[in-house]
Amino acid sequence: MDDVRNRRIVLAARPQGRPVPSDFRIEEVPAPTPREGEILLQVLTLSLDPYMRGRMDAAKSYAAPVEVGGVMEGGTVAKVVASRHPGFAPGEIVLSHSGWQTYALSDGTGLRKLDPAQAPVSTALGVLGMPGFTAYAGLLAIGRPKPGETVVVAAASGPVGSAVGQIARIKGARAVGIVGGADKLAFVRDELGFDAVVDHRAPDLPGQLHGACPEGIDIYFENVGGAVWDAVFPLLNTFARIPVCGLIAQYSEAGPFPGPDRLPLMMRQVLTKSFTLRGFIQREFADQRPAFYRDMAGWIADGRVRYREDVVDGLEAAPQAFIGMLEGRNFGKLLVRVSAG
Amino acid sequence: MDDVRNRRIVLAARPQGRPVPSDFRIEEVPAPTPREGEILLQVLTLSLDPYMRGRMDAAKSYAAPVEVGGVMEGGTVAKVVASRHPGFAPGEIVLSHSGWQTYALSDGTGLRKLDPAQAPVSTALGVLGMPGFTAYAGLLAIGRPKPGETVVVAAASGPVGSAVGQIARIKGARAVGIVGGADKLAFVRDELGFDAVVDHRAPDLPGQLHGACPEGIDIYFENVGGAVWDAVFPLLNTFARIPVCGLIAQYSEAGPFPGPDRLPLMMRQVLTKSFTLRGFIQREFADQRPAFYRDMAGWIADGRVRYREDVVDGLEAAPQAFIGMLEGRNFGKLLVRVSAG
Repeated sequence: MDDVRNRRIVLAARPQGRPVPSDFRIEEVPAPTPREGEILLQVLTLSLDPYMRGRMDAAKSYAAPVEVGGVMEGGTVAKVVASRHPGFAPGEIVLSHSGWQTYALSDGTGLRKLDPAQAPVSTALGVLGMPGFTAYAGLLAIGRPKPGETVVVAAASGPVGSAVGQIARIKGARAVGIVGGADKLAFVRDELGFDAVVDHRAPDLPGQLHGACPEGIDIYFENVGGAVWDAVFPLLNTFARIPVCGLIAQYSEAGPFPGPDRLPLMMRQVLTKSFTLRGFIQREFADQRPAFYRDMAGWIADGRVRYREDVVDGLEAAPQAFIGMLEGRNFGKLLVRVSAG
Repeated sequence: MDDVRNRRIVLAARPQGRPVPSDFRIEEVPAPTPREGEILLQVLTLSLDPYMRGRMDAAKSYAAPVEVGGVMEGGTVAKVVASRHPGFAPGEIVLSHSGWQTYALSDGTGLRKLDPAQAPVSTALGVLGMPGFTAYAGLLAIGRPKPGETVVVAAASGPVGSAVGQIARIKGARAVGIVGGADKLAFVRDELGFDAVVDHRAPDLPGQLHGACPEGIDIYFENVGGAVWDAVFPLLNTFARIPVCGLIAQYSEAGPFPGPDRLPLMMRQVLTKSFTLRGFIQREFADQRPAFYRDMAGWIADGRVRYREDVVDGLEAAPQAFIGMLEGRNFGKLLVRVSAG
């Protein structure tokens, strides 16, 4: 493979607040050559997800940060193009974590083979992958919706939010989505079948959300933070459950944050209304993945779960698409088509 | 009983911030006469507990507020002095919720007969009652301590905190107490056997707490709020559990609270460290009361759980004792000896 070039996007600088294009740099180097026990993967599709913003900071989190100069990490669908590993043959399609680049080596650890005949392979990065499982595990294991309860989720046209609301409805709960923009609102209401949808850009978000939740909120699936939290908070019912899987609205804010201090009132409400607030990442619930694959594949097959992908073309488009996602400019699961496969 | 007088303490005014003596008023009225199906109770001991501060406010909580002019509510140990109820005989001792008064009627609902031969009846208001069960349910059902984990609790000489630490040790965890004052520190360390104790009045509470928790904090049993929370927060480990049963340090603060706003950092840590924050009141776990009575009676009998009572004499002493408790001036479970029985 000596004549094959690997293009990759590295972290050029740690962002100060919102990432800008100069925080990324594209490089071209010779593609690596697999040694015994290794395979060479060609990335077909790269997934862009909000958690990547956290990896760009040096701060300790549940995962190590990307080093400055290091390849941006990310989930990918890739094709085996050369193999010196007995378990993989050229032409096979796998789910991998190859990052923002066109080629990557693997020793097979953590790879999952995908069958293009069963489902479009890109769904392994979305509704049948990490985002879908985040929705499934957080809603069912932490939220535990009961029939008739009200479930609220923001970024409702995105891969996590859209699954949260649709699974909530399958479990007999009422799904209320929060979105940014009229096109997303129409999609979530008409295509996904949420019971109510509110546009967070509309004036009087608190009042509109109140109108959409006349019996209060039993589960708030928190994936955005910021102003949406302030609208949700007064509507939370006694025994409300709040799975927290993301805070995209505040990922780029460093603090300290101006007052008033909202923590004392929050703690008082946690106490007097017996709230459960629970941060999580999906891999904590790994034992439920088989049930997820079975349930979700069935729901997609019978049309009860729908999904939307937002695909941009070419690795070099990734930084701008990622920056746009943090501002809510994607519409559906954001994917980068890296090579035609 | 026409010649018997009932003395009672009523809520004279809703407190502005910290309660003051003029928020209470003592009244004397004829004791009531039981009708068919009723009993007359003479209160022997009144329990004073932090939750009563919440009942003095008009704000909605998990229980209705005491009306202005209404008798302050509270748990009591009482003696049946007259009965027109087939289930109760004069001379029997019961746990009741008769409030801050010397006599009360009851139709028997919610009463529990106490056997003075089994345990001192006052323990039904403390270690074998609501505070002890609050500790038991919050620590075991929400905190779920594992051997070797570190459990931190404030007000560690009080009825809830002392039980939390001792139960934690029985379950193989490390108990770290926070107290106010050298006498309480010595008691919690030497009599209750906590692994470490920190005085929150000492300079550098955060540093001292860090020294007492070299491997971080796995469970913080929150019953005080305020400055203790700020010292605990940076030490919380991944997957920390935070049962919230009280916030005595902020009950009398109305807000808005000056900045900086601590909520965004709190939410970020909930997310990145997978915290569980869970407000609760003990009656939610009522199905575990039989196990509690059995376990706790056994632990008291074999000396593994000790307790301390702080008894003041006479109903008229209740307001000042209650005000002192909110400032941490009691030392052990605060009780009022209302009549000799």
